Amino acid sequence: MIKKLVDKIVETNAPIVVGLDPMMKYLPKHLADVAFEQYGETLEGAAEAIWQYNKGIIDNIYDIVPAVKPQIAMYEQFGIEGLKAFKKTVDYCHEKGMIVIGDVKRGDIGSTSEAYAVAHLGKVNVGSKAITPFDEDFATVNPYLGSDGINPFIKVCNEQDRGIFILVKTSNPSSGEFQDQLINGRPLYELVGEKVNEWGASSMDGDYSNVGAVVGATYPEMGRVLRKVMPKAYILVPGYGAQGGQGKDLVDFFNPDGLGAIVNSSRGIIAAYTKEQYAKFGEKNFGEASRQAALDMIADINGALGK
Amino acid sequence: MIKKLVDKIVETNAPIVVGLDPMMKYLPKHLADVAFEQYGETLEGAAEAIWQYNKGIIDNIYDIVPAVKPQIAMYEQFGIEGLKAFKKTVDYCHEKGMIVIGDVKRGDIGSTSEAYAVAHLGKVNVGSKAITPFDEDFATVNPYLGSDGINPFIKVCNEQDRGIFILVKTSNPSSGEFQDQLINGRPLYELVGEKVNEWGASSMDGDYSNVGAVVGATYPEMGRVLRKVMPKAYILVPGYGAQGGQGKDLVDFFNPDGLGAIVNSSRGIIAAYTKEQYAKFGEKNFGEASRQAALDMIADINGALGK
Repeated sequence: MIKKLVDKIVETNAPIVVGLDPMMKYLPKHLADVAFEQYGETLEGAAEAIWQYNKGIIDNIYDIVPAVKPQIAMYEQFGIEGLKAFKKTVDYCHEKGMIVIGDVKRGDIGSTSEAYAVAHLGKVNVGSKAITPFDEDFATVNPYLGSDGINPFIKVCNEQDRGIFILVKTSNPSSGEFQDQLINGRPLYELVGEKVNEWGASSMDGDYSNVGAVVGATYPEMGRVLRKVMPKAYILVPGYGAQGGQGKDLVDFFNPDGLGAIVNSSRGIIAAYTKEQYAKFGEKNFGEASRQAALDMIADINGALGK
Repeated sequence: MIKKLVDKIVETNAPIVVGLDPMMKYLPKHLADVAFEQYGETLEGAAEAIWQYNKGIIDNIYDIVPAVKPQIAMYEQFGIEGLKAFKKTVDYCHEKGMIVIGDVKRGDIGSTSEAYAVAHLGKVNVGSKAITPFDEDFATVNPYLGSDGINPFIKVCNEQDRGIFILVKTSNPSSGEFQDQLINGRPLYELVGEKVNEWGASSMDGDYSNVGAVVGATYPEMGRVLRKVMPKAYILVPGYGAQGGQGKDLVDFFNPDGLGAIVNSSRGIIAAYTKEQYAKFGEKNFGEASRQAALDMIADINGALGK
């Protein structure tokens, strides 16, 4: 699956992913009005509004952006109805030819980790049938439980041609409380990065591995080190834009081949219409504002990479 | 909420929780037959079979066991239909007066962690309404992202009188790959335990904190240390039975007041009918076999505690 993502990044010349993290406060009012009129102020109403919001953005970016990253928490908070909107979004992105990175941050052990892998990347056996539950192409995974938590995901990745991104160094201010602690003189995130490299060797797909890593844009100096620790891992980079990262900070997350990283922006793209820079589009044209913000982000990153 | 759990443990004299982790291979055949006849070999059919399985167990244990711990991965793998069975199980356990620990192992940062907390422990705002999505009493949480990931959960716990159990030392063989690594001469899990103690201070509820910890039964010597590092944290102890833990190994997870720990068994209880020891009940009476296994587990632990 990583080869498919790399091909798509090369084709679009856009090493970016748009985080579909719909928050109610960013939802254009007219979408909520219509949905609440139809379904009331219910979970179903919220889910419908979110779905229309996503659709408006996807329709405006699918030809220029290779991948989306829906954050499942933003759907899960609306219960079953929210998760239906998540699934609808995944399917629609696939219809539009986009690759879907499920930002689910799951992780458990043994048969439980396998159940999560099956839920998001595989097929589940029901009697004599094998059925696809959520059907993302990639999922994000938490490494705190070690190999017992990761190997079941890799098994499903290899069987179904899917991929994972393992949290190595996250973009948040407190990520260092545990991740930066020194073990024999080296930070925990480096140790996790080494394991990512080791785990990834069993799932190569072209020049890169289906086992990638998450490293926050907010820590470029750590990205530089981790790029070398895990040369075959694609790095998913959150923290661009709203959290402070910029194109010029991200150069060292990439390999000399100009590949190896995909940068995520969520609010910066999906809520672009709320920003002064894109206010001219107006709330009704939130999708066009998102498209312009995506184009600007691509130009920023490609500019920094000299492409 | 921890006070409610403690009261319930005292009332039942049973410091145990039953893991409702329905795996297809343990599902009594007659339940699958009926469900598949009604819904076909579909996700809906699987979800119905799981629900009937859970109901059969809950009906047989609710008066002697204080709490259940449904593992959401086992439901999530059946997609939307599986999650409906999860929600139905949570609601039914509440009807029966049981406390529900959602074993969801979620964890993210900022507004995303808050969305998970809202999904599982709180209420979500939809227009002018506040609606309860999944409604568990406790959730398990992964600490790898640090305070930014935990504090939003504590906020919801304090607002809604709920609780969390943070993964400190997990029961699996490879948990040591990261958790046991030495930082200034002390293992990472102790550092996490110290943070649990610190986080927990802001959510006291009676003698204990709403912020508890997960420490595997398979590592009793670490349980002994962690018990002292986080004296106010309730310890949720997985790994009893199937994974090897026994009552006599668990004494040091408890405080001198005879409280402070709740031991989980999943397969050992829900699949009791498949074990030689309880084969006499037969597959049709799987619920009665579960009840007997729960009684035996309670006796084992209380015996070790000299109660």
